[in-house]
Amino acid sequence: MTTTGKQLFTTLAADGTLTVEVADTEFPDPTRNQVLVKMEAAPINPSDLALLFGPSDIAGADFSPGKLVATMPEPFNSGAKARHGQRMPVGNEGAGTVVATGDGEAAKALMGQRVACVPGHAYAQYAIADAAMCLPLGDVSARDGASAFVNPMTALGFVENAKMDGQQAIVHAAAASNLGQMLLKICQEDGIELVNIVRKQEQVELLKGLGAKWVVNSSADDFLPQLCKAIEATGAYYGFDPIGGGTTTDACFKAMERVAAAKMGDYNRYGSNQPKRMFIYGRLDLGPTILTPSYGFGWTLSGWLLTPFLANAGMETVGRMRKRVLDGITTTFASSYKLEVTLEQMLEKDAATDYHAMRTGEKYLVTPWG
Amino acid sequence: MTTTGKQLFTTLAADGTLTVEVADTEFPDPTRNQVLVKMEAAPINPSDLALLFGPSDIAGADFSPGKLVATMPEPFNSGAKARHGQRMPVGNEGAGTVVATGDGEAAKALMGQRVACVPGHAYAQYAIADAAMCLPLGDVSARDGASAFVNPMTALGFVENAKMDGQQAIVHAAAASNLGQMLLKICQEDGIELVNIVRKQEQVELLKGLGAKWVVNSSADDFLPQLCKAIEATGAYYGFDPIGGGTTTDACFKAMERVAAAKMGDYNRYGSNQPKRMFIYGRLDLGPTILTPSYGFGWTLSGWLLTPFLANAGMETVGRMRKRVLDGITTTFASSYKLEVTLEQMLEKDAATDYHAMRTGEKYLVTPWG
Repeated sequence: MTTTGKQLFTTLAADGTLTVEVADTEFPDPTRNQVLVKMEAAPINPSDLALLFGPSDIAGADFSPGKLVATMPEPFNSGAKARHGQRMPVGNEGAGTVVATGDGEAAKALMGQRVACVPGHAYAQYAIADAAMCLPLGDVSARDGASAFVNPMTALGFVENAKMDGQQAIVHAAAASNLGQMLLKICQEDGIELVNIVRKQEQVELLKGLGAKWVVNSSADDFLPQLCKAIEATGAYYGFDPIGGGTTTDACFKAMERVAAAKMGDYNRYGSNQPKRMFIYGRLDLGPTILTPSYGFGWTLSGWLLTPFLANAGMETVGRMRKRVLDGITTTFASSYKLEVTLEQMLEKDAATDYHAMRTGEKYLVTPWG
Repeated sequence: MTTTGKQLFTTLAADGTLTVEVADTEFPDPTRNQVLVKMEAAPINPSDLALLFGPSDIAGADFSPGKLVATMPEPFNSGAKARHGQRMPVGNEGAGTVVATGDGEAAKALMGQRVACVPGHAYAQYAIADAAMCLPLGDVSARDGASAFVNPMTALGFVENAKMDGQQAIVHAAAASNLGQMLLKICQEDGIELVNIVRKQEQVELLKGLGAKWVVNSSADDFLPQLCKAIEATGAYYGFDPIGGGTTTDACFKAMERVAAAKMGDYNRYGSNQPKRMFIYGRLDLGPTILTPSYGFGWTLSGWLLTPFLANAGMETVGRMRKRVLDGITTTFASSYKLEVTLEQMLEKDAATDYHAMRTGEKYLVTPWG
């Protein structure tokens, strides 16, 4: 017995033609510790957009009902060679109701419950999910629980990672985002200092309104001195950058080194001894990351992804993080959405070009039953 | 009582005027575990040049006997603000004879011996050095022992670091250098696979003549596929880059990811799970480091410096490394020099422009009594 429902697929052909479409599909019965979730709400996160559209030309796409055909430019098309010809479902996370389960105890215990889940194909009317990764939502709505995983666990992951590395302060770029606001609240709760980098004055005010002590505007003429001042005051030599391309990380390293060098007695041609650590966890800017030779050799830059972090952190830590998310799902970890769209509306020109722009505070929510 | 001798100094004024000169100076008596070394030979390494000249315009400098006045361009002059106005001695390492000691036992034991040392002001007729860092050379000449520290310990440090991180294979860029040849010999002795990146066909032949299995020419049209082939064969997801600027490290990450992705069953939008690690340990290219978004998030790039590495490695490891250097000082760790120059000849136009170019295999040796 299978269940039929609508699902969204993205397919990149070798010639760079990207087809995104809604199609009827059959969902298999869940086995063992799988559950079948009737999906009610799923957010469109930047990490979903990377697979859904990537850097293809959405404004110039051909739109027809339930379908969009765009062109993926080079070098991105060649770079995505591994997905050429594969018809891929999309949507990391969402929430809905468990309507069928495998015969495993963990799965059976969820029957009939509303859960947040991480199926990896959440833009659909149904999804098969691992029971172990489902978060029972109780009386929390699917809308409120739809973003219970990616942003909350990532923001908590930054703070966990910082604590593991003995840090008391964090720099965060694109800090007015949904995730950035969660990080601010977590840091406030945990007594971690946070240096917020934003690029608009209204975002400075938004974060200050939420009680942020240190907010620096990267569009301001005195960005670097202001960033130095915040780093000096907080001791934040450790940061997270979702922009990736350009010079955001470079500016952080520069400011960290400038503060550290000013505290040194003697000039050292190799720079200060202060370790400086940055993580790139997103690619809002697909241009290359630029690192200038102006902060010695005492720095480390890594990519950061949630899944390997959780795998390394271990069950106990992950369990503690999940409990904290559930406890704060309508407060610390609340998400806000600009608009709700059906699967078909996701592929209409106005909506697609709007959410593809990934503007801060303008997240979309997909409601597959409309 | 003090000792008088010639010493080289480099001074950068706030306006970007760089003055490098030979001057008579007084060396204090050594105290405690210090020794006074009559210096006989000191190499000019890239790490010395960074302080000596930096990226100043040496070809356009004013030359007079024992003196050179050049201009440091922006943004490097502002970046070197911390040294403005300081008259700094130069020369990390060298070799000579101990002519006076402090009253510490370690120092007194070295009286009259020929030693390799790391005074940080080796471009001089005398130098004060720590006895603990001196390597007694026995019947090895000062010329043969002059480079016993920086390159040998750095090359050994790479292999130690790789072993600490559980690696069996290393990628090395600018691999035909003096240091690169040492690394090749160490890897051969220790059974570590080495992927050598060079930029000229003659360097390919040089390293193959030394028994290198994997040498890739970055100037060749098929550089990236050849690099992939070498990484595939060796499993080298761990490398060291002394170039720093440009795309050398980027090419390594790209090739590593391409090899790892080809081994994966399914496409993953976040890239492979294979950790990829690169270290930048020099700045032969002072341009920015360019990292393109084409290898997911499973990578880490760090600056690498010998001194903090040795501090972290601990006394036992450092002692073992020093013994190995001494045992192989005329074989594995032998250095070759293009030319010998006196302190005054260091500041003549032909010599200064020649060694400032830091061409592979064209290292200079300073003989301050020469």
